[in-house]
Amino acid sequence: MKSDTEIADSTVLEEIDTIARKAGIPVENLFHYGPYIAKVPLKLIDDHKAKKSHLILVTAITATKAGVGKTTVSIGLGMGLNHIGKKAIIALREPSLGPCFGIKGGATGGGYAQVLPPERINLHFTGDFHAITSAHNLIAAQLDNYIFQNRAEGSGLKNILWRRVMDMNDRSLRQIVTGLGGLNNGIPTEAGFDITPASEIMAILCLSKDMEDMEQRIGRIVVAHRYNGEPFTVNDLGITGPVLALLRDAIEPNLVQTTEYNPVLVHGGPFANIAHGCNSAIATRMALTFGDYVVTEAGFGADLGAEKFFNIKCRQSGLRPDLTVLLATTLSLKMHGGVPEADITKPNREGIVQGFANLDKHIENLQSFGQTVLVALNRFTSDTDEEIELIMRHCEQKGIRCVVNNAYTDGGIGAADLAHAVVEEIENNPSRPLRFTYNDNDSPTAKIEKIAHTIYGAGEVVFSQKAEKKLKQIKNWNLNHLPVCIAKTQYSFSADPKRYGLVKDFQFTINDIELNAGAGFIVAIAGEMLRMPGLPKHPQAHQIKVVNGKIEGLY
Amino acid sequence: MKSDTEIADSTVLEEIDTIARKAGIPVENLFHYGPYIAKVPLKLIDDHKAKKSHLILVTAITATKAGVGKTTVSIGLGMGLNHIGKKAIIALREPSLGPCFGIKGGATGGGYAQVLPPERINLHFTGDFHAITSAHNLIAAQLDNYIFQNRAEGSGLKNILWRRVMDMNDRSLRQIVTGLGGLNNGIPTEAGFDITPASEIMAILCLSKDMEDMEQRIGRIVVAHRYNGEPFTVNDLGITGPVLALLRDAIEPNLVQTTEYNPVLVHGGPFANIAHGCNSAIATRMALTFGDYVVTEAGFGADLGAEKFFNIKCRQSGLRPDLTVLLATTLSLKMHGGVPEADITKPNREGIVQGFANLDKHIENLQSFGQTVLVALNRFTSDTDEEIELIMRHCEQKGIRCVVNNAYTDGGIGAADLAHAVVEEIENNPSRPLRFTYNDNDSPTAKIEKIAHTIYGAGEVVFSQKAEKKLKQIKNWNLNHLPVCIAKTQYSFSADPKRYGLVKDFQFTINDIELNAGAGFIVAIAGEMLRMPGLPKHPQAHQIKVVNGKIEGLY
Repeated sequence: MKSDTEIADSTVLEEIDTIARKAGIPVENLFHYGPYIAKVPLKLIDDHKAKKSHLILVTAITATKAGVGKTTVSIGLGMGLNHIGKKAIIALREPSLGPCFGIKGGATGGGYAQVLPPERINLHFTGDFHAITSAHNLIAAQLDNYIFQNRAEGSGLKNILWRRVMDMNDRSLRQIVTGLGGLNNGIPTEAGFDITPASEIMAILCLSKDMEDMEQRIGRIVVAHRYNGEPFTVNDLGITGPVLALLRDAIEPNLVQTTEYNPVLVHGGPFANIAHGCNSAIATRMALTFGDYVVTEAGFGADLGAEKFFNIKCRQSGLRPDLTVLLATTLSLKMHGGVPEADITKPNREGIVQGFANLDKHIENLQSFGQTVLVALNRFTSDTDEEIELIMRHCEQKGIRCVVNNAYTDGGIGAADLAHAVVEEIENNPSRPLRFTYNDNDSPTAKIEKIAHTIYGAGEVVFSQKAEKKLKQIKNWNLNHLPVCIAKTQYSFSADPKRYGLVKDFQFTINDIELNAGAGFIVAIAGEMLRMPGLPKHPQAHQIKVVNGKIEGLY
Repeated sequence: MKSDTEIADSTVLEEIDTIARKAGIPVENLFHYGPYIAKVPLKLIDDHKAKKSHLILVTAITATKAGVGKTTVSIGLGMGLNHIGKKAIIALREPSLGPCFGIKGGATGGGYAQVLPPERINLHFTGDFHAITSAHNLIAAQLDNYIFQNRAEGSGLKNILWRRVMDMNDRSLRQIVTGLGGLNNGIPTEAGFDITPASEIMAILCLSKDMEDMEQRIGRIVVAHRYNGEPFTVNDLGITGPVLALLRDAIEPNLVQTTEYNPVLVHGGPFANIAHGCNSAIATRMALTFGDYVVTEAGFGADLGAEKFFNIKCRQSGLRPDLTVLLATTLSLKMHGGVPEADITKPNREGIVQGFANLDKHIENLQSFGQTVLVALNRFTSDTDEEIELIMRHCEQKGIRCVVNNAYTDGGIGAADLAHAVVEEIENNPSRPLRFTYNDNDSPTAKIEKIAHTIYGAGEVVFSQKAEKKLKQIKNWNLNHLPVCIAKTQYSFSADPKRYGLVKDFQFTINDIELNAGAGFIVAIAGEMLRMPGLPKHPQAHQIKVVNGKIEGLY
């Protein structure tokens, strides 16, 4: 089989206007970034039309080092739906530059299920991440300047909450001291940088309904505490306008195409631990406006990504999926079944059977939202027919359809079975009305406990003193109604990344609480959360070069 | 008269393909950023054709707080040339985000001599500055990671020379300590951020001939010293490829239009003190390929901008201007004549006469390069006819043409006289062959002394011990052939910003030397150089807002 790069290079792209026309998107108002990428104006969103279309969420069992290929399956399913004659649009997150130069490489699918042109989508794209970085750092610079310029009379501020961001893996910037070298250089301050996907501005962009809503959200961001205990916001700083100006174009979703010329909206890319890990609600609504079927995904495993997709993204946007596709592989099931990583490509029935506990818990969780669940098996070359059969029988016994996906090797036709199954399930067995895990008027403590008990299977939920103090403050500020975004490891139902498979009745500790008043959620931190990745000893960057104007080694 | 914003808003732009066609630029290979902005591919540069066209440099007398409107005059002259039937293209620098939110506001001209669309050119534009920021910071992250990953055996590096950049005015980032909080966060290091226009990557982009040349230059950047005294470069770090990949699109010049639909290439924007302060050589060569006349400008006054334009940009690129336009205003002449800022709008013959010394020195300097000089007077409403007459007579006595420019109020027709004069001078009295201030094989010390004596009018030139040590190192590395880029204040011929007018026989001290081996020059620092501006008490940002999708208050 050809490499990802060979497949991408040998695909003669269609002009994006052609892709748009096929999707019924009027081309007059597209804003082009060259021939193959365009921004679609917000005004084209029609929520009335969108409500008639079918939304499909792709999520996965708990992540392991084996990887499951969620993006590739999402792209493949979209291609498969188009292949069987349905009008389907895919809505995905944008890649960050950090992983491109770090460990992971690009994030535009793989094999015959890719989003193109990958060397543009992975690098700079339409500048959305750069705009978010600038907007975020403008707030930081203006906040520091406010404190500096008002130093004589006193700024009235304590507890500066706003860090800076950079779209780069740079561990040295995690914890820094700024303002050194004398008064002309500002006031010495403990500070730090997160990677751009961890920016609250990113979460805001992904949850905003329109420009007005984004303006409101930006204005509400709490950047510091006042000495009198009240929040100090971006509105108080007087710079909501310029922040919005920097994001005016970034809020519009980006249209690209798959290896089979199907439309894809790639827009926004928040972290899936300290943020909600889904592409923008705007892009999903735009996709639903023009597609009869829309495939979207949520980051990490279903306990993190899907839970936030439902309880945060769906709650804030009104989106309602008709079906959830839960992705599994023989390799990841074996890892959850206790098979050592070195042995997972060897046939191992018992390992798979032991791994079912993880799969079953995710199915149960997704059903708790009222979702019809369909299991997709992303087939790897080492899989035996017997192993596949074993998983299918297990699902059948639970009344769950299970379908093999071969889009990576075969493109849309390789996902035709999956696409047919999805369409049939939506027709014959659609999801029930969405049930959230908690209500708006539950206290944040109750919300966290409900997620921990229901979704993670935790026993006792413990709050640190720090967390309790911050929850009290949030209550005082009348923000108890916000949903919660739990930041925990993607490698386990628990907060311990080493506990694979199914974990039960563990103690679950919330160490800290952060308020993202602009994004509109309360972050509950369980365990150490890395917001700025580091680089490995041999970074991916070393593989990247430009040959005759083409970028090689990126994906 | 309408405001800049009203004029820009009321101009119905032509599609950029129309602008390109009129200029004879093939539109098939343009890379569009919406309907009004496009990148022009490098392969269209034809140096043979370019050599037949006429290059005009716009520079100015020493900067004062009064401002002279150099960009507005450059745009106006280009419009004037088109107005009188010449095929003229303007080549300008790109604005930085920093000043947009700081003191100055945008940088796209003013009145009826603007470059459009200003709200895009001033914010994000085609992402060139963001690409340069990413490329610069990728080197920083990979360098820190190299030291971190090799900490056990030792990296062999000392004297880390590479800082980080951000396109923002943020004084707090000038001097920082990174890598705090334990070993996982790297190794504690003194570090800092410059604004993106101060990046060596910016200077490289602006001086590169093509992709291959840019690759060579990136590879040559010295990021640290080895313990054995040798340089450690980006090539040694093994990341020339990914840095080049990030800049692949940024190297192509950006085509936009004036308020009268004339073509403008806006590309690159290096500082004019610690870098050479001109738009990219690529853009100038592209403009000369398609225009019979090309108007370009150099930053700050002629002692800084024009000197570097000739001795660095022309030397490295082979560009040769046919004429230099030296810009003056009654206001700035009065300031140089010792009139207090508060009084410069009042008529004052004696003040202007006293200010001629500054004008005359710049004329003499420009003539030392072999240039035919034409003085342009940018007329302000407070100017009296008598004052204008006085300046014109002064120039006449020196055998220099002096023409009033009214492009700000009248557009191209207001610069028609200036345009006619420029064309006539080029025909009848063209510049002599370019004479550099120094030769490649002069020592760096001799180069600095020649500039200081000839251009600045300095007496003794003194080198600090630190500077001498670094010059010795440059000699050991066989880099004595590089040109020098003197970093000094723009407000005086001397290194003291308070010494207006003409200053003579002052002692000129070089405090420090920096090697920009990639850009291909040696920076000699005279006085304190700010590479990261701060914000004022009432930043421009507070004026900026988005109203019905339009950005207001930016320019």
